Amino acid sequence: MSLSEDQTIAIPRAPESASSTFRATVPALEQRLHQPIPLLDHGFIRVIDYMGDDGAIVQAARVSYGRGTRKVSEDEGLIRYLMRHRHTTPFEMCEIKFHVKLPIFIARQWIRHRMASVNEYSARYSVMDREFYIPSPANLAAQSTSNRQGRDAVLEGDEAVEVLRLLRADAERAHDHYAWMLNEGIGDSPADPARQGLARELARMNLTLNTYTQWYWKIDLHNLFHFLSLRADPHAQYEIRVYADAMMEIVEAWVPVAARAFRDYRLGAASFSAPMLAVLRRMLAGETVAQPESGLAPREWREMMAVLQPPA
Amino acid sequence: MSLSEDQTIAIPRAPESASSTFRATVPALEQRLHQPIPLLDHGFIRVIDYMGDDGAIVQAARVSYGRGTRKVSEDEGLIRYLMRHRHTTPFEMCEIKFHVKLPIFIARQWIRHRMASVNEYSARYSVMDREFYIPSPANLAAQSTSNRQGRDAVLEGDEAVEVLRLLRADAERAHDHYAWMLNEGIGDSPADPARQGLARELARMNLTLNTYTQWYWKIDLHNLFHFLSLRADPHAQYEIRVYADAMMEIVEAWVPVAARAFRDYRLGAASFSAPMLAVLRRMLAGETVAQPESGLAPREWREMMAVLQPPA
Amino acid sequence: MSLSEDQTIAIPRAPESASSTFRATVPALEQRLHQPIPLLDHGFIRVIDYMGDDGAIVQAARVSYGRGTRKVSEDEGLIRYLMRHRHTTPFEMCEIKFHVKLPIFIARQWIRHRMASVNEYSARYSVMDREFYIPSPANLAAQSTSNRQGRDAVLEGDEAVEVLRLLRADAERAHDHYAWMLNEGIGDSPADPARQGLARELARMNLTLNTYTQWYWKIDLHNLFHFLSLRADPHAQYEIRVYADAMMEIVEAWVPVAARAFRDYRLGAASFSAPMLAVLRRMLAGETVAQPESGLAPREWREMMAVLQPPA
Amino acid sequence: MSLSEDQTIAIPRAPESASSTFRATVPALEQRLHQPIPLLDHGFIRVIDYMGDDGAIVQAARVSYGRGTRKVSEDEGLIRYLMRHRHTTPFEMCEIKFHVKLPIFIARQWIRHRMASVNEYSARYSVMDREFYIPSPANLAAQSTSNRQGRDAVLEGDEAVEVLRLLRADAERAHDHYAWMLNEGIGDSPADPARQGLARELARMNLTLNTYTQWYWKIDLHNLFHFLSLRADPHAQYEIRVYADAMMEIVEAWVPVAARAFRDYRLGAASFSAPMLAVLRRMLAGETVAQPESGLAPREWREMMAVLQPPA
Repeated sequence: MSLSEDQTIAIPRAPESASSTFRATVPALEQRLHQPIPLLDHGFIRVIDYMGDDGAIVQAARVSYGRGTRKVSEDEGLIRYLMRHRHTTPFEMCEIKFHVKLPIFIARQWIRHRMASVNEYSARYSVMDREFYIPSPANLAAQSTSNRQGRDAVLEGDEAVEVLRLLRADAERAHDHYAWMLNEGIGDSPADPARQGLARELARMNLTLNTYTQWYWKIDLHNLFHFLSLRADPHAQYEIRVYADAMMEIVEAWVPVAARAFRDYRLGAASFSAPMLAVLRRMLAGETVAQPESGLAPREWREMMAVLQPPA
Repeated sequence: MSLSEDQTIAIPRAPESASSTFRATVPALEQRLHQPIPLLDHGFIRVIDYMGDDGAIVQAARVSYGRGTRKVSEDEGLIRYLMRHRHTTPFEMCEIKFHVKLPIFIARQWIRHRMASVNEYSARYSVMDREFYIPSPANLAAQSTSNRQGRDAVLEGDEAVEVLRLLRADAERAHDHYAWMLNEGIGDSPADPARQGLARELARMNLTLNTYTQWYWKIDLHNLFHFLSLRADPHAQYEIRVYADAMMEIVEAWVPVAARAFRDYRLGAASFSAPMLAVLRRMLAGETVAQPESGLAPREWREMMAVLQPPA
Repeated sequence: MSLSEDQTIAIPRAPESASSTFRATVPALEQRLHQPIPLLDHGFIRVIDYMGDDGAIVQAARVSYGRGTRKVSEDEGLIRYLMRHRHTTPFEMCEIKFHVKLPIFIARQWIRHRMASVNEYSARYSVMDREFYIPSPANLAAQSTSNRQGRDAVLEGDEAVEVLRLLRADAERAHDHYAWMLNEGIGDSPADPARQGLARELARMNLTLNTYTQWYWKIDLHNLFHFLSLRADPHAQYEIRVYADAMMEIVEAWVPVAARAFRDYRLGAASFSAPMLAVLRRMLAGETVAQPESGLAPREWREMMAVLQPPA
Repeated sequence: MSLSEDQTIAIPRAPESASSTFRATVPALEQRLHQPIPLLDHGFIRVIDYMGDDGAIVQAARVSYGRGTRKVSEDEGLIRYLMRHRHTTPFEMCEIKFHVKLPIFIARQWIRHRMASVNEYSARYSVMDREFYIPSPANLAAQSTSNRQGRDAVLEGDEAVEVLRLLRADAERAHDHYAWMLNEGIGDSPADPARQGLARELARMNLTLNTYTQWYWKIDLHNLFHFLSLRADPHAQYEIRVYADAMMEIVEAWVPVAARAFRDYRLGAASFSAPMLAVLRRMLAGETVAQPESGLAPREWREMMAVLQPPA
């Protein structure tokens, strides 16, 4: 399951064997097809297949709206209108399929997005490789004191050294014992004919959650944008965000107009609640408003002020 | 919204403008791409785009099963195994997009299949064409007396003539009044500047259910097989079955191995309940079993016997 | 399928026959259970069943967040936090089932919401009643000139009279012919033994789109909020908005805390795009900004200004 | 997260505090409400809430079929008909919510069923308890030699002792180091003020896959039947099958008629492919058929013969 081996396993046709097609084709994405983008220490993502382009979004929207909005020059405006007003169904008309290698604890977050198709490497059938995610020192973060689900400053000194040592040692020991229990002659554990060998579906339970798995993951553009709005967000865990960021770059090559609209109207947008809008109108009328008289809870007030400050 | 006009609206690129792609490509389907197949009196279906082929099913299954089942010669066996044992996720890795023109009362059946993406022509935004489904005389069937949802013998004589006359006259009158109410200068109704014109979202309610609509419909192969198992079935209404049959032919060009497995293990298969299996075992042991002593209700008995008779 | 008959068909147990349960129960919703709320001229909606309450949302969120956030006093704050930050899964833990009677052209809009369960009255099996939606004069609106999908001023004078006459006459005639074609002795059409009678699945195509249908519709609270955010919106068609408004009142009786959060953070909220936020920051800094130098398209500028004006 | 603590956390109302409701209520299920059923060594499942009963399935089907099939005596026949002919939507009208505690490697299988709602205990927010699944000696099985995903004979002697020792030691050590890395004063690891403590979202990666997690899981009856058809099957992994078996018992208390139909037509049923049906007809006509002349592959032949043998 190493990267080089994966390429031989899963790429069914060599890049030189191009075909001729009448389908919508995106040259900028063709160049990236099948090419793994390395992520974390052993992970990667790559595009296996895709359907549609910016034009396919427009084409579907035009069926809904019928005659009269057919000028090609209006395409970008139409896509931006669809995005702004959350007319989401035309974005479902584009589809993309990824091959992803990722740590199991990240796979568990990822799989919560249900509107996608998945085929994951099965440890019931097959043997898991001896590959684990060990954070780089720069990503070894302390628990945030202000945010129960966040991280804070980088761990330093002896503590960092010891954490990295433990993560590696526990993962390796667990996998060594996994290999011994399987008794299939894996790694340094020769098969012992006197032993029966534990069933794979049981032995896998001894692995640690930073073990790498891999899957094929297919999703439409609307649902991918939803995934990205949550996972390319600064509040997302770093280890899933790197995958989201790589997908965002791929999306920009694939459907540049839709990607730009997504950045403007979703990723970079902010929602103001009814009480926040009331405060905003007072401020725009020249009034100085402070939190206690704003009608907003302190937390909401801080969230609103953070949005209204010019970004650094 | 006539067929010829649709072609100019919705086909974004001429067939001669082929592109080069590294994606899985199916020449037999490329030939059919964008080509409408006429159905009923004014309907059609055509393939707009697709993703994947038989190999994509195998590729996804191989990720699940990992090493050791990689021989190319085993591909057909693997696809048949997946189909037989309802391992459905690899079939989700193929996707297809259709452009369909169909009567509204059929669209209402069709839309019940939720696991698909749809963009329908909107009568809130646009004006509906004056096109209706009128059955051919051979498809003008009487109500079945044995099956509350079925049809029976063909209507004959004066009754058939009168039914066809009524269907046509009511649809045309309703559309003529629709055009008059819109007051947009459609068909034989010149726009009258003295009138305001009814809102489109209201005027559409005057149309009859055999008015044609159209949509883009995108679905993965697993869900398409589910659709076909219900709608390519002899119990399905004729007017939706013709679309299902056309899609089945398209699927056979697209993923011939999977299509054959689907025919053998789904379309042509029969399920025997636990009580039916008990009867079957007695019969195979040489016993003569009659319904009263079978433990089956009369209706189940008839269903079982119908399956066990050699097809005519 | 008239309202009074529906009650006898579909309410399986009389209101006096209350049961004892350990499930979460909402007295304010129990009072409304099974009681139809009349809508439009012949439609209605009523609650058939429900699962969960505000507490069920909190309970599910607490499983995610684990120990340490268990104070009852924090429940409302938690629900508002979930709504504000689009942590949607706890809202899926509440479920509601409605019985709805509605015109077919509205049913066609409604059914586009796929994440719900539906059982609709089938015109393949059964005969449709002679009931049609005819707008009240106050709701007979002209086509909007500024918005292709909107309506504008009320139709007046002879035109209004004629439109109402046509809507009623065409619907009634179509149903009369439907009954004649069925030849089942419906309404004023006695069954003629000399005629075969057209199959129900075919005869239905002669009905107009304002014919009433009915269904059971079951949905979780998260998806219901999504439905309401689109259909209780001023841009939604009036004829579906009345159903959404009735459901919103039901939701307020059922989960009052979640409903309030939904009003504040979704229904009454506005989203500002990245370019809009840039403009907003300039305005708050005291700068006077006009559209041409705002970086916003004229349409976006108008949308933003409409939000920032104090509501009338 | 121990069982006793869970009961105090998550049961929102004591069993004596029953409410009065007009909703469909099932006394046999009320008795089981909130009561955990212990499974494996530390797991459990319990019903938190439910909506509907056998009558709700009938009620929804009757809306579809309309008038004329209303006799109460026909209810069981109708439910069995729906099940036999895969008319699945009425079964979606019943809903159930479970609270489940289960090992992570089983949770990973379970979550693949997408048509359900889930709220899982989050190790990003909260600390995982020191509880692991260790198989009982009777369930410590060797890898099957005939089936790549199966298990075979029970492990015996020293090998079994050593496997159990390794599973326990690795899980405990990993959790001890997890607690040390967190530095929150958990278990035997006192908080050291000189250390920063690793972020929870990172520390969790050190845990083994047999660590217990818990979730709320809500699903409709149709999708639950699909889950059970796969996971209550003898080919399912033992550790998920015990949960499926417990749910099957719960379903029998909840909707006894539907559960019986499910056993007869789904769990105990067998599907015969078109080629199998051809063989069957020859056998019933008295012919002796052997595999080589059957047209079936050896594997299909064995599968068919296994079904046709009287069960032991």
